[in-house]
Amino acid sequence: MREVVVLGVGLHQFGRWPQYRHAELARKAIMDALKEANAEFRQIQALWVGCVVRPQAMSWSILTEVGMTGIPILNVESACTSASSAFREAYFAIGAGIYDIAMAAGVEKMQRGLQGAFFPDTLAGALGLGMMPATYAQSAVRHMKVHGSTIEQFAQVSVKNHRNGTMNPNAQYHKEMTLEEVLGSRMVAEPLTLYQCSPTTDGASCAILCAKEKAAQFTNRYVTIAGWGAGSQGYAGGEEGDLAEGLVERASRQAYERAGIGPKDVDLCQVHDAFTPGELITIESLGFCPTGMGGVWTAEGKTEITGEIPVNTDGGLIARGHPMGATGIAQIAEIVWQLRGDAGPRQVKDAKVGLTHNVAIGGCNIHIFKR
Amino acid sequence: MREVVVLGVGLHQFGRWPQYRHAELARKAIMDALKEANAEFRQIQALWVGCVVRPQAMSWSILTEVGMTGIPILNVESACTSASSAFREAYFAIGAGIYDIAMAAGVEKMQRGLQGAFFPDTLAGALGLGMMPATYAQSAVRHMKVHGSTIEQFAQVSVKNHRNGTMNPNAQYHKEMTLEEVLGSRMVAEPLTLYQCSPTTDGASCAILCAKEKAAQFTNRYVTIAGWGAGSQGYAGGEEGDLAEGLVERASRQAYERAGIGPKDVDLCQVHDAFTPGELITIESLGFCPTGMGGVWTAEGKTEITGEIPVNTDGGLIARGHPMGATGIAQIAEIVWQLRGDAGPRQVKDAKVGLTHNVAIGGCNIHIFKR
Repeated sequence: MREVVVLGVGLHQFGRWPQYRHAELARKAIMDALKEANAEFRQIQALWVGCVVRPQAMSWSILTEVGMTGIPILNVESACTSASSAFREAYFAIGAGIYDIAMAAGVEKMQRGLQGAFFPDTLAGALGLGMMPATYAQSAVRHMKVHGSTIEQFAQVSVKNHRNGTMNPNAQYHKEMTLEEVLGSRMVAEPLTLYQCSPTTDGASCAILCAKEKAAQFTNRYVTIAGWGAGSQGYAGGEEGDLAEGLVERASRQAYERAGIGPKDVDLCQVHDAFTPGELITIESLGFCPTGMGGVWTAEGKTEITGEIPVNTDGGLIARGHPMGATGIAQIAEIVWQLRGDAGPRQVKDAKVGLTHNVAIGGCNIHIFKR
Repeated sequence: MREVVVLGVGLHQFGRWPQYRHAELARKAIMDALKEANAEFRQIQALWVGCVVRPQAMSWSILTEVGMTGIPILNVESACTSASSAFREAYFAIGAGIYDIAMAAGVEKMQRGLQGAFFPDTLAGALGLGMMPATYAQSAVRHMKVHGSTIEQFAQVSVKNHRNGTMNPNAQYHKEMTLEEVLGSRMVAEPLTLYQCSPTTDGASCAILCAKEKAAQFTNRYVTIAGWGAGSQGYAGGEEGDLAEGLVERASRQAYERAGIGPKDVDLCQVHDAFTPGELITIESLGFCPTGMGGVWTAEGKTEITGEIPVNTDGGLIARGHPMGATGIAQIAEIVWQLRGDAGPRQVKDAKVGLTHNVAIGGCNIHIFKR
């Protein structure tokens, strides 16, 4: 497979945007990505669009907004991993030599209350796994019992991510939160309080991918995809019974192997903090800290922008926001900006290798990027 | 890109199946395809599922039905081309060397009345293009004015396809129709009567794809993907303004070039007869008969199973049925069976090369297969 790079990325600021159609949100992200890539839309050879709530005709609607150039288009849906899956499909097709330059985008306008019970008529929904706060709360309780982590450590994830969000103009929230404010907010699913949960968000994201051998004709400020891993939840009991473990370890092992590196070589990561346990536990699954130490590392500041392994430098799902079908590429955008040195006040010093972790019921995508 | 073959295909009979869940329909198609491929589900390395009405969590729901093996899964949606797009994504990934064996499936349970106005809140819908019978009726009227084709010639497509459907156990309808019955059925959109429209259908389809270099360990009765073409409707006026023209010519040209053949080398084809003009006009766009002669060729029997270019040997969308997200792989299944000599009473003699044509608002997929 050919090497593939990201030429440019773009976002529409995450937030609540009732005044814009999906395609208008996507247009902003797409135009910004094209500008970074020094490319025009008519040069894009294929488009994949991630969307969860209403994917039907989404990519076609976007073409009617930005240019009916006749290219192959496809809507992809895999819950909260929709955008990173769109990215993966574009990556495979360029790697295969099918296209030289292609676009992956994600867009979502979320309905209020949706996150409460997302798949009511599937087996997962019937088992209560569609109630995401409950699922993550179970993970937190288990981690507290097994490893002795504390509610303050989980809440500290939110404190850090809200602080990071204040430095990200594309974030939904720009307000610092104290530990007391996070712990004192309304209880959603014990021990998770409201500010430990990602919000209801609208937004769009875009990445332009290109064969490395063709990239120089557009820009030299590209970032290379060094490895990937993917999978779905499996049968195995034990650790696999926990949404945030097992699958993540398996997918990240694939990604590390393909990239020829280990966790110690990663300078920063964006992980799927849909709820605070999603970050605290995942940094263990990804190998960034010893098993059971996610809480201690968080409390000690090792996941801060200036820490040992900066995590969710853009505010993460909790402060940047989580428009489901757009999130995966927003994570990738942050890594691209960080590796290029374009992250402004939230820049991680001398970042050379970054990792994204995007997870959902039915899927996990890990991507590793290098300068 | 590596050569890729189809190891096996399967369908759940198309029809009205209110008693079955989506995943139950899919299970039947998947198990049949696995049997043909001489493979077990645990050997499948990735799964793409096409679905239109409710793609959310569909592939995960299918995994919970047939085996939670931990593989990467993805739901894809591109209206009536969803299944052929799932097939295309699997093809690219295997071609790229990502996977050796993978599965593409399609499943749909259609709501009554859905086809009437499918994309009510998109631009296409606002322009009336979501009303598919009207769109195809416009194509028919234009063809009659420009080329002198007759309402009887359009109706003859339905007569032929209903006759072919009687020989296909997986078809929704097994009843011959006379020209008088087709013309005498209720008018839907002049000149299209009810029996010239594809019905409301539930069903599922599955194809197992494999790298050619790995195929022999499963079966030697595989069919090779020789070429593909894809695209979406473009700006260009004139012929591009007609849903069934322009785009199809472009995508099929790509497919012929990649396969290194021309229309004369094709022994049979499955085309997207969502409405009778979709077949009559498309056989011209695909180069099987001279422009404007689709009606004459149909009336003269040249598209019959025993004719010059057999078209829709399985009954097509009109008689086999059109469960939107499953149709594309049903077309592919018919070509696979025909090229293997397994098509029973509807077998095309000595078929070596077959073509599938699947089209929708926003997409067209052409695939060429050879023995």
